Parts: sequence; C-alpha cells; structure tokens
Amino acid sequence: MSNVRPIASPSITSPSSNSDDRAHEADHPSSSVAKFGVDQPLKLDCGVDLAPFQIAYQTYGELNADRSNAILVCHALTGDQHVNNIHPVTGKPGWWETMVGAGRPLDPEKYFIICSNVIGGCMGSTGPASFNPATGKVWGLDFPIITIPDMVRAQAMLIDRLGITTLFCVVGGSMGGMQALQWTAAYPERVFSTLAIACSTRHSAQNIAFHELGRQAVMADPDWRGGRYVDQDTHPYRGLAVARMAAHITYLSDAALHRKFGRRMQDRELPTFSFDADFQVESYLRYQGSSFVERFDANSYLYLTRAMDYFDIAADHNGALANAFTGIKTRFCVISFTSDWLFPTSESRALVHALNASSARVSFAEIETDRGHDAFLLDVPEFLEISRAFLQAAGKARGLGNGDGQS
Amino acid sequence: MSNVRPIASPSITSPSSNSDDRAHEADHPSSSVAKFGVDQPLKLDCGVDLAPFQIAYQTYGELNADRSNAILVCHALTGDQHVNNIHPVTGKPGWWETMVGAGRPLDPEKYFIICSNVIGGCMGSTGPASFNPATGKVWGLDFPIITIPDMVRAQAMLIDRLGITTLFCVVGGSMGGMQALQWTAAYPERVFSTLAIACSTRHSAQNIAFHELGRQAVMADPDWRGGRYVDQDTHPYRGLAVARMAAHITYLSDAALHRKFGRRMQDRELPTFSFDADFQVESYLRYQGSSFVERFDANSYLYLTRAMDYFDIAADHNGALANAFTGIKTRFCVISFTSDWLFPTSESRALVHALNASSARVSFAEIETDRGHDAFLLDVPEFLEISRAFLQAAGKARGLGNGDGQS
Repeated sequence: MSNVRPIASPSITSPSSNSDDRAHEADHPSSSVAKFGVDQPLKLDCGVDLAPFQIAYQTYGELNADRSNAILVCHALTGDQHVNNIHPVTGKPGWWETMVGAGRPLDPEKYFIICSNVIGGCMGSTGPASFNPATGKVWGLDFPIITIPDMVRAQAMLIDRLGITTLFCVVGGSMGGMQALQWTAAYPERVFSTLAIACSTRHSAQNIAFHELGRQAVMADPDWRGGRYVDQDTHPYRGLAVARMAAHITYLSDAALHRKFGRRMQDRELPTFSFDADFQVESYLRYQGSSFVERFDANSYLYLTRAMDYFDIAADHNGALANAFTGIKTRFCVISFTSDWLFPTSESRALVHALNASSARVSFAEIETDRGHDAFLLDVPEFLEISRAFLQAAGKARGLGNGDGQS
Repeated sequence: MSNVRPIASPSITSPSSNSDDRAHEADHPSSSVAKFGVDQPLKLDCGVDLAPFQIAYQTYGELNADRSNAILVCHALTGDQHVNNIHPVTGKPGWWETMVGAGRPLDPEKYFIICSNVIGGCMGSTGPASFNPATGKVWGLDFPIITIPDMVRAQAMLIDRLGITTLFCVVGGSMGGMQALQWTAAYPERVFSTLAIACSTRHSAQNIAFHELGRQAVMADPDWRGGRYVDQDTHPYRGLAVARMAAHITYLSDAALHRKFGRRMQDRELPTFSFDADFQVESYLRYQGSSFVERFDANSYLYLTRAMDYFDIAADHNGALANAFTGIKTRFCVISFTSDWLFPTSESRALVHALNASSARVSFAEIETDRGHDAFLLDVPEFLEISRAFLQAAGKARGLGNGDGQS
C-alpha cells in the first residue's frame, strides 16, 4: 500500500479576525442608525412587542424638495445595507453596484436611495447577534421569530423617521423582492412603484427544504451551543459554512456551474485520488463557505431563512393572492430569469396573473440567461435596461423629470 | 416578552442501536461472501493493489444450465445488495421490490439475479468501515480511493468466481447505471444487454458540488475525528444526516415535493414562530437524515461520492464517448425521467447519441413523471413495462424463451 499518497482531511478554514469586526457591527454599525425606544415598539407577527430596537441604514443621493424621489432597496438573505459602498467587514465593494450608482438604473444623482439592514440581520439592525438590554447578553435564540411583514413594518418606521410619506419605488431581489411585494400589499398608498426581481409571493416546499438543511447544518455544529456561542466564546463556523455551500449551489444554474467550472481540475491535470479539492468547483464552494462565516452571524442566518419560509402573501389574504393587491394603484415591474430554479419564472407568472386579476398595472420580463438566481446581482444588460426603463417611465408619471439627466 | 413561547433547539436525533448491527455487517455480512486472498488483489485505479478483500452479495433465482440467464443488478450510492429481501439492519423490505421479484421485470423465476455490495461500501464488501488486517483497526481514511471502474473490476472477479462468462444483463440506476455503462465499456463481450437508468457517463459540476457539500458536512462534524471515529468510539451522525438531507432534496423534483408536502404544516394549522419543524417537509427531511445514519457508514459515504465525482467514461477513452463503445454488440436500453434534475434527460440523450455514433443497438425512453430522480426506485408503470419489454426482447435473442412464463 506504499504507493498511495496519504489522504488529506481538508476542512473548512476557521474565520479570520474579520469576525470580531462583524460582531462589533451588530451593535455599533458603521452606518447611520435610527433608534426606537421602549415607547415605540415594533409589533411582531409572533405577538411580541420588540423594544427598544434599532435600524442601521445607508443612503445615497439627496431627497428632493417634495420628497418624491426616495427609493427603498431591500436586501436579500445574506445581503445588508452596504449597497454601494465599501463593506466595513469584508472591505469589498457594495453588493449591488451593477444596479445602484452613477449612470446605473438607480442613480443617486436622480434618486434618494435608502437601504436598511433587516430586523433580524447582523449588520446593525436589532437581531439575534445584538445586545439584549434585558439580559445583558447577546440575544441569541431569545430573539423572537421575525417575518417578512415584520421586516417591512420596521422599514416603514424608518421611512416615517426620515420624513417620507410615499416611496417612489421599492426595489429588491430574492428576499428583497419578497419585502418589495409585502410593502406594496401592506402599504399600497405609500408605494408609487414596485420592482420585484427573482422572487415569489411564497416559499416553495423545495426552498423550505433547502433552508431547513442549512439550519440543521448550523444546529448540528457543537460549537453552535444551542445558539449561545457568543457567551461561550465559540463560533459554529463549520456548520454555517456548510449551510452557505448548500445555498450557494441553489443560487447558480447547472449551466452556469458547467460553464464556470465543468469538470476542470484545480491546479492539476490528473486526479489526486484523495479528498483534496481536485475539481475547481470544490475549491470554489469551500471558499464561498469559508468567506461567508467571516461576515455573517449563524443565528441571524437561522432567523432570516425562517422568515422566508413563513412568507405567504396569499395565506395572509384569505388564501387568494389577488386579494392582496385589489384596488392598488402601484405600478409593478416583475422580473424573472429563465435559469433561476430557486425562484422559477412560473412563480413570477403566478404573481403577474394575480396582479392582472386585481387590475393592477404590471409589466413582466423574463430575462433569458444561464446565470441562475444570482443573475439579479450580476451585470446582465437586458435586466438592467428593463429596470432603468421601468424607473424612467414611473419617474415621468411621478413628475421626476424625463430621466435623461434632468432631475 | 413573556407572550412568546420558548424557541426549541431541535436537532438531529442520535442513531439507535441499529448502528451496531451496521458496524457488524461491514465485516460479517448476513449475505454470501466471496473472499479474495493476497494472491488475488483488486487492482485499483489509484495504483494500489487491494488484498485481501471480500465481496458480499445476494442472489435470487437459479443459474440455468448454459449459464446464460444471469443479471447483475448494480446498486446506487446508498443502496446495497439487499434488493429483494428484508434488510438485516433496518428490517425493511429490499430497495428494488418494484423491479425485482415474482411477476416483476427481473423475475427470479426466469433469471439468476446477483447484486453485490460495491467495493468501498459498508454492508460486507471491503471498504473504509472494514477491518484492515495490516493495522488491526478499521480502515477509515487509510482505505484507498476507489472509482466506478474499480467497483466493476471487483464485480467481474465475483462473476468469475460464480462461473459466469457472460451476463445476460447489467442493470442499474444512478450510480448503478454508471456501473452498468462501465461494465459495458470495460467488458463488452461479457455483457449481452445493458439497462442504464437515470444516470450519466460523467458527473456534472453541479453534482460534484452537491457531493462536496455532503463531504464537507461529514468532515465538519467534530465526531468525524479525521475519519477515525470508530477507534475513538464516536459517530459523526449529525454531519452525515445533514449530508443525507442535502442529497435527498436532489432525489426529488420540486413538483414532487410540492405535491407531497406543499406548505402544509406538521400536526398544526398555525406557525409556532419557532425553529420547530412547522412544515411537513422539514419533518420529512429530518427523518430522512436521522434514519440514514443508522444504516450507513460516514467514511463510506465519502468514498462512494468521490467515486461518482471521478466518473467520466469519455475521459478514459481519449475524450470521446463514442470511442468507449466502438464495435460493441451489447443491446442497450437507456431510460431517463423528465423531472430528474440530478441526472437530466439531456445527459441520457448525449449517451444515446454517442451510442448511435458507435452504431450500437440502443433504445431510449424518456419517462414522463414528476417524481424526480427517485422515480427509478418507485412504482412507475411505464418505466417498469419498458424495462420488462427490453429484457424480454433481449431474452429472445439470447434464447431464454419467450418471456411468457416459459424459461
């Protein structure tokens, strides 16, 4: 047996010191913060009044004189408020620079753009990683379960605080799209237009299954300690990395993985006959898992996946989706991607049919791409052009100028 | 905050005493065993000569006088040789009772049916869970990496031992289909017909990604102990259960999950606002994970997934799939399922095109079903009828009688 090389035991690498920065951001974010005291509780769907709490947010551009140019960007599951600035933990560019920025569809020269970290998040809005004043410890699993409507309710309190009555647009992809739809269903008079991308009005059984898998991966890590890892100075980074790896596969299409990696080997031509990362796709996944744990809180991941699982607009409106949007004046644009198997086009079509049944104003675009769910984060020209055109048309109706540089 | 129920921390349940039975089966199977001594090594692709080793197998029916009615069933990743008998660990029926049995397409009244546990498995054929005579301990990660061609090479030694020159048919689904194809490419003169179901001639990047996720889940479990958990009296059942949950999602289609579970709640009508298994699909997945660990060895899971990842018949034949089957006389039947996204129909079509290019005799059936990859294990009448018809026609050509009860 001497002619075989020893089999390595490659494991997920432990997080760098970044995670200390991340822990600090949970309570003391680099962003602006809106604090709400005990007299201004957030009324959660689970029956809890959450108070005090805070919302961390970023803004780009200026609110115009008649306060009519505000756009709320809602972030996805593992996103945050750092849409178009250097991320305080990772040092990387903002997560939606393709969509937001000078010359981009959401141009701060024209619009006042707001993005807040969701309630339950870990980048400065109150969540399980935050300090719980009642116990003097980090919330952990003492934090109440939150829902997509709860996230939106908190954002509405922030928008009130910023002195904005009606948002020109609520924009989001994936979990952000769920929030955009929830905003419109809950506060139709406060939303002039809605851009809902790669999302659904409810989470499918398969998506719940993938989320449950991720949660079980976190909870299976002994360092999770029943959610009390901060108190016990541990970090369930292995379980969280596995959860991220699973989720990451769902964000890409089979075709995109094939194009990016195929069966290509990593830095070699022949198999090592080991459990090393022989294939490039293996190295890529391990990297995705390891880098994620540096910037994200494990309990927050549990809470936000749960919020998505519970989401079901129709169920909140006597089982009929069309009921949620009856009599609504908001202009909708719904966008899906052909290769997105996490939120397939069929779910966007069901939404569009419901909006049509409600006589809502809706345009729908299915973008042909092999880039999967992640397409909404990427430079996909047709998608960006349609978003720009929708906002320009809505802007005209809103009296925001013709969108050709005159604001 | 008193009106919220405490959040449970549901975790994967620890395995029952079944796992002791499983460990015993690794070396002392309830099945028949073919032992190969140090003078009969298994020559592995990694360069190692594995000796001694053993193959555990089951047979059903009788070999006819001219030894022309033998069918080799190749099992899938987590299958074993217990095709049509009570499983010695779980006590459940055999895994392919829809296909094998009286009145079924593979009827022991007509055929001599053999199924062996693959090399690298954990139900009696030598693998990482077996005792290593050189060290006096369980092999663990000292076991050499095995490949699909290695599995087939071991099966060929078993078939020799049983005194069979030519198999009437090699049948398998998923990893079993890979073995059936490899058998035909490696020993075309020994395979009269091949029934390859829900498989591929190489593993896709997405499938490698899912396997890597599963391996990382196992290795992330501290109880894995670098693969030495048996020596250290631990069991990485949490990691293995997570791996199984991930794999199980890929075995079902989105439509099948939706039909089976949808968003239905488990024993309740309203959400618990907790991490309990609110949705039926969550309970189902947890059960799948927990029951799997009672019958399967974690290291074996690593080795068998790796073997599938490495599989690439074309790469072994100068990059052209058609080269693998040039001049072949074997009769092929290739079957795929429309909703199988693990081994999509397009991959079966590519195989069929290559077989056509080789002027091989091939029939192809794409079965319309929403049951996903698992359809090959289920009672899908059209699939079973096509399998039966293929075997009957091949049987006539082989002189096995007309298949109407005369053998």
